[in-house]
Amino acid sequence: MIEELAHIGRDPATNGYVRDAWSVADMELREWFRGEAARRGLDLREDRNGNMWAWWGDPSSEPGVVTGSHLDSVRQGGAFDGPLGVVSAFQAFDILKNRGLLPRRPLGIACFTDEEGARFGVPCMGSRLATGVLHPDRALALTDDEGETLADVLTKAGREPHDLGRDDETLAQVATFVELHVEQGQGLVHEGAAVGVASAIWPHGRWRFDFRGQANHAGTTRLEDRDDPMLAYARKVLDAREAAVKHQVVATFGKVRVSPNNANAIPGLVAAWLDARGPGEAQVRALVEELSAGHEVSEESWTPIVEFGAALRDRVAKAAGRNVPVLPTGAGHDAGILASAGVPSAMLFVRNPTGISHSPEEHAEREDCEAGVVALANVLEELCR
Amino acid sequence: MIEELAHIGRDPATNGYVRDAWSVADMELREWFRGEAARRGLDLREDRNGNMWAWWGDPSSEPGVVTGSHLDSVRQGGAFDGPLGVVSAFQAFDILKNRGLLPRRPLGIACFTDEEGARFGVPCMGSRLATGVLHPDRALALTDDEGETLADVLTKAGREPHDLGRDDETLAQVATFVELHVEQGQGLVHEGAAVGVASAIWPHGRWRFDFRGQANHAGTTRLEDRDDPMLAYARKVLDAREAAVKHQVVATFGKVRVSPNNANAIPGLVAAWLDARGPGEAQVRALVEELSAGHEVSEESWTPIVEFGAALRDRVAKAAGRNVPVLPTGAGHDAGILASAGVPSAMLFVRNPTGISHSPEEHAEREDCEAGVVALANVLEELCR
Repeated sequence: MIEELAHIGRDPATNGYVRDAWSVADMELREWFRGEAARRGLDLREDRNGNMWAWWGDPSSEPGVVTGSHLDSVRQGGAFDGPLGVVSAFQAFDILKNRGLLPRRPLGIACFTDEEGARFGVPCMGSRLATGVLHPDRALALTDDEGETLADVLTKAGREPHDLGRDDETLAQVATFVELHVEQGQGLVHEGAAVGVASAIWPHGRWRFDFRGQANHAGTTRLEDRDDPMLAYARKVLDAREAAVKHQVVATFGKVRVSPNNANAIPGLVAAWLDARGPGEAQVRALVEELSAGHEVSEESWTPIVEFGAALRDRVAKAAGRNVPVLPTGAGHDAGILASAGVPSAMLFVRNPTGISHSPEEHAEREDCEAGVVALANVLEELCR
Repeated sequence: MIEELAHIGRDPATNGYVRDAWSVADMELREWFRGEAARRGLDLREDRNGNMWAWWGDPSSEPGVVTGSHLDSVRQGGAFDGPLGVVSAFQAFDILKNRGLLPRRPLGIACFTDEEGARFGVPCMGSRLATGVLHPDRALALTDDEGETLADVLTKAGREPHDLGRDDETLAQVATFVELHVEQGQGLVHEGAAVGVASAIWPHGRWRFDFRGQANHAGTTRLEDRDDPMLAYARKVLDAREAAVKHQVVATFGKVRVSPNNANAIPGLVAAWLDARGPGEAQVRALVEELSAGHEVSEESWTPIVEFGAALRDRVAKAAGRNVPVLPTGAGHDAGILASAGVPSAMLFVRNPTGISHSPEEHAEREDCEAGVVALANVLEELCR
């Protein structure tokens, strides 16, 4: 079923996916979601923030059990991060129907908008807006690489920008949320398990560093007359790695914007984004403070540690199968945002043989994906009791 | 007169200019050139490579004296680099007409195509093609940031890609070429002179370094499992500076392309461009060899040292005024390409108070620009004798 999406937003040069929120590819993915919901007779709703919900049963009478994930992608990402959770949700529903389940409470499939933040720089946009963590005014003013604001982009997509914001009505319909996701490390490989359950999401954040210098001609400006911000950036990249080792966290400069970015010009500005995460908030904060000293730094996002509720976690792990390992992750997810907002949430992971993610080489074996679907169906059945 | 161009391709956010070859801005600049030529009754020709020539007199009977420069810009460049030489050429013609000069040989104004190489990465494209230094097949296959080839771009601009190539017929019409240009350093400031003459153009080149790693998730990939090419790039930036000091040359990493360039992804590829120049070829070569060791490096351009012919240089300096200093430059120019191809060539520089170039802050005082025009007129009159 994930193969049906294989052509959407695929870069033929790299086999990587480019599925920015509200892009043509995203619109196609949304259309696919609507079609799958309709085919199963599910009731489709798009909420104020563009998140889609396909319901089996009516959640306005009684809050339901929801599963799902997202369909957008990082740029040059893989086929699984996001879509696996949505596809598995539909397939789990099919299993439950085959089993003749008559759910005692509504069951829903969610597709969150702009989980990756590839276009506007803020990950989990849809769930952050719905839970009120992100203020709609801030979101609407965000710009993409072409300088278009989210407000413009939404208008072009036929949405009403002023609808954006905290959506208690929608959240009230969600009694429990379970997100299935491909693992983004090799934890399950080491455990020898196809499926696992999340214990926690590491605290993580994103910081923009602006290194300013004096744009000038690369051929005629003497070394001693230069104010070249690329040098400061390079030192910071190496410092970040050293500090990460010291503080036992991970730190990455994966995105850079150089201005003017001409081979024959000393840059006037190097903007670079630091991603930092770790098992504890104190370590991550210490790293960022150390690296920020004396620099122009703005915090673009910060997500405290999310520890998934132990009772639900154990119930999910038990329903998912025998000896299902419980392990933390360094990746942020909509389930983490919902959990922080007080929605009982849990996550299932599917084994990733290489651990590679956010890359065209991201992979999961068919057998493991099928085990994930069965585990998810079992979990949903249990949660509907 | 340069003010007439002030609005074309200007980025209102920065006041920098973006005037890529064959862009809408470039087309507008070309139209302006045609208009100025027509207004003066000059005979306009576009050669096989898109360079424009405005003639006073017929160069097919006798080769002429040509001045001019280019109208394209680096991205986020200033108002003077390029246009000053073209505008000054028209103004020098006006002075000569006012003086009642009846030139004893044809006089021409040249506007070269894509001098900066901002779009396709190869500077002095128009003059390199005309002199045969750059093979048309290589040029036509070059791609811009959108992946469009020069061949596509030319076709869209209504040009015939197969016309490109060595153009002996056009070159045969040029007896002498004199390019006026804003200085891109502070040599004339130190000399206390408004106008100077070029002795030589430093040898210079551009090399592309490809740092390859393994694209992966920034949150879930342990430090010890990473193959992060940003680290190798950062080390190279710092090494380049150190090596430049050692070899007494200038070296710059001013352009970087990161893939996928997501804040939450370890890059799979960092491509970076090294620009290196210096007073002698051996030093520049030594630096590049040192930095290339063990890396994937391709030479995108190399221009040996250009020493302008001493007889012409002295004649130009004498005609340009009293005590006109003679000084080298680290910047490449079409005059250098023509000189290497055996066309007697010279350059005039106009003082740049800050030395800043390839930046919106690039500047030249009106008085100095006027001195440049008068010097150029005097030089042209002398060369027409």
